[in-house]
Amino acid sequence: MTTLRTPGPTLGVVGGGQLGRMLAEAAAPLGVELIVLDPTPECPASLVARDQIVADFDEETAIHELAERADALTFEIELADQDALDRVEAETGVPIHPKPATLELIHDKLVQKRELRAAEIPVPEFRRVDDADDLRAAIDDLGAPLMLKARTGGYDGRGNVPVASTDEADEAVEAVAGPAMAEEFVDYARELSVIAVKGDGETATFPVTETIHREEILRESVAPARADDELQERAHEAALVVLESMEGRGTYGIEMFETTDGEILLNEIAPRPHNSGHWTIEGAVASQFEQHVRAVLGWPLGATDLRGPTVSANLLADVDEPAPAALSGVDRILSEPRGHLHWYGKSEARPLRKMGHVTVCGATDESSDELLDRGRKLRDAVSFATDDQR
Amino acid sequence: MTTLRTPGPTLGVVGGGQLGRMLAEAAAPLGVELIVLDPTPECPASLVARDQIVADFDEETAIHELAERADALTFEIELADQDALDRVEAETGVPIHPKPATLELIHDKLVQKRELRAAEIPVPEFRRVDDADDLRAAIDDLGAPLMLKARTGGYDGRGNVPVASTDEADEAVEAVAGPAMAEEFVDYARELSVIAVKGDGETATFPVTETIHREEILRESVAPARADDELQERAHEAALVVLESMEGRGTYGIEMFETTDGEILLNEIAPRPHNSGHWTIEGAVASQFEQHVRAVLGWPLGATDLRGPTVSANLLADVDEPAPAALSGVDRILSEPRGHLHWYGKSEARPLRKMGHVTVCGATDESSDELLDRGRKLRDAVSFATDDQR
Repeated sequence: MTTLRTPGPTLGVVGGGQLGRMLAEAAAPLGVELIVLDPTPECPASLVARDQIVADFDEETAIHELAERADALTFEIELADQDALDRVEAETGVPIHPKPATLELIHDKLVQKRELRAAEIPVPEFRRVDDADDLRAAIDDLGAPLMLKARTGGYDGRGNVPVASTDEADEAVEAVAGPAMAEEFVDYARELSVIAVKGDGETATFPVTETIHREEILRESVAPARADDELQERAHEAALVVLESMEGRGTYGIEMFETTDGEILLNEIAPRPHNSGHWTIEGAVASQFEQHVRAVLGWPLGATDLRGPTVSANLLADVDEPAPAALSGVDRILSEPRGHLHWYGKSEARPLRKMGHVTVCGATDESSDELLDRGRKLRDAVSFATDDQR
Repeated sequence: MTTLRTPGPTLGVVGGGQLGRMLAEAAAPLGVELIVLDPTPECPASLVARDQIVADFDEETAIHELAERADALTFEIELADQDALDRVEAETGVPIHPKPATLELIHDKLVQKRELRAAEIPVPEFRRVDDADDLRAAIDDLGAPLMLKARTGGYDGRGNVPVASTDEADEAVEAVAGPAMAEEFVDYARELSVIAVKGDGETATFPVTETIHREEILRESVAPARADDELQERAHEAALVVLESMEGRGTYGIEMFETTDGEILLNEIAPRPHNSGHWTIEGAVASQFEQHVRAVLGWPLGATDLRGPTVSANLLADVDEPAPAALSGVDRILSEPRGHLHWYGKSEARPLRKMGHVTVCGATDESSDELLDRGRKLRDAVSFATDDQR
């Protein structure tokens, strides 16, 4: 039985980027306070959070301090340190959700794929690659082209190298520079994502999101996905199987491929709110961020119902080199009926860095194609580039 | 042409109560930072705002400091000091919206009524009352019963004394203890409110809200109002006339009576976001708070369209005497499909103090009666009273 007081429960969050900021925005109406731990002073979440502890993600004394000041801990960045979190949980008794062990899965793509396969969740074919010989053997097995992926540290396409033939094996292994895995190229019709929430004895999934990537960076999210009901149903089921194998409460982002044969293959899992679920802020009854707050605190989950077809598009910095963030043309977004602007509060624009997003909510009779077109036009109307760069 | 940077534009707000808090919640996604001025340390808005200046609302050096740190000023409390604001605007050149002159209208109910009548906006009959003789003369003119209202300082029914006959005149004047006005009792079918926004060369109104008061305190808001289209149209028109006579940009709450004859009479105006517009956070495309931020900064206004029928109910402290705020039974609200909780972060519960609100958003085919019933059940399921008080 939840009783609300002032100050409300405090959530300690390792990481204070845009995910932390949107968590804080969702937490405030519920009376939940956030303290974030992030090495960057004035990190994006700091504007909305109660306080920031400026420290590296793996600085154990700082995580300890965070726990001492909080009722529960969570993380919004995969760089969080599993062992440090485990020790702090044991020492302070402050619960951490999801369980730090989920970070291991996420840290190492090979471990994740093996776990999924062990849980009988369909995944693309893969091989461990420690050197160029391994890679050549993988090409013999899986065919070429294939994708060589760094097992750790990769995100937004970094650490991924497409390999066209055995001739490129040495160069590719050198480029990845560390433990890697080779993965078959999936012939997919669409990329999908299911935002799933594990609560206290209950689970919930949001309507399936269709994700559109370019250069392996998410560009647009379309909800509901333009896939038939039966396929969406299977995507939900796959997400629930994944959720079952995850330890600890919270929002998870589960990325999948819909193959041209109509099969669903699991791609990647993030044990935190996910970029492909930002549309839920306006497009669903309770957003992925509100659900994460509720889940971590052990509160009842909210409704995940769609409020209407919704599209969001990332605002990536279209700059050639780092520059102070300045987004021009914002009036175009502000003037869009049913358009919503989200600014992450990052000081520096770096090439293709995620600086914000726009969401367009449609009336119930509007088509997703139309909304996607509107979302793209909004994104294309604004720019981080100075006049002479454009 | 708006360009967004980090840090974004800063809004200085005189007052840091729940309105300031919800302003900050709406400002954050837009990259707009808030600094609030409020005498209560850890005031409700302080959790979400960038910073708080702890000072009295009329402390001119503090208002000056607020202006120095902001790109624009606004106020969320009628206790803001008009003259101090005027001087600070003149000295610093930092624009204040709405114009401080609107505060005078609001400070003095008699001045407000006279201004409205001068603008040919229909209002209930009223008389100035300085002493018991004035009140007896007013009763002769307007009939009894009538309402004696303190001209200044009244809110949520405080300062209002119903007068049944001339026999009660001395006692009533003594109870109000200051300059007053007498107002005819309006035989109304409904109370309505229109949240209206004055932007830079544009205006917008939200769908008409039906407001339900008890003991002259707002209990529930129903949107759209259960009134016919023609009447709602006239309510919008009246609101636009009022807006015309207001100086400066921002969100205004305009309260009206719908008389049993189907006429619209203006009741009161608040030059700020209003309790009767809290439903717009989830129920409209851009909330009254987002609109206020946009308007004050001179940005384009957002869409005021209804996203679906919506009801909100205030969570008033059901305590007999001041006590630390502790709301029990919150799980009932959290478990309501399409229910939304808003906690204001006040430390102390005082009898009938506004501590938060709940909103229920309906599907488009749901009736307002049904939603109102659901909203009331949520409110009635929670309590600030300790077990032995209930």
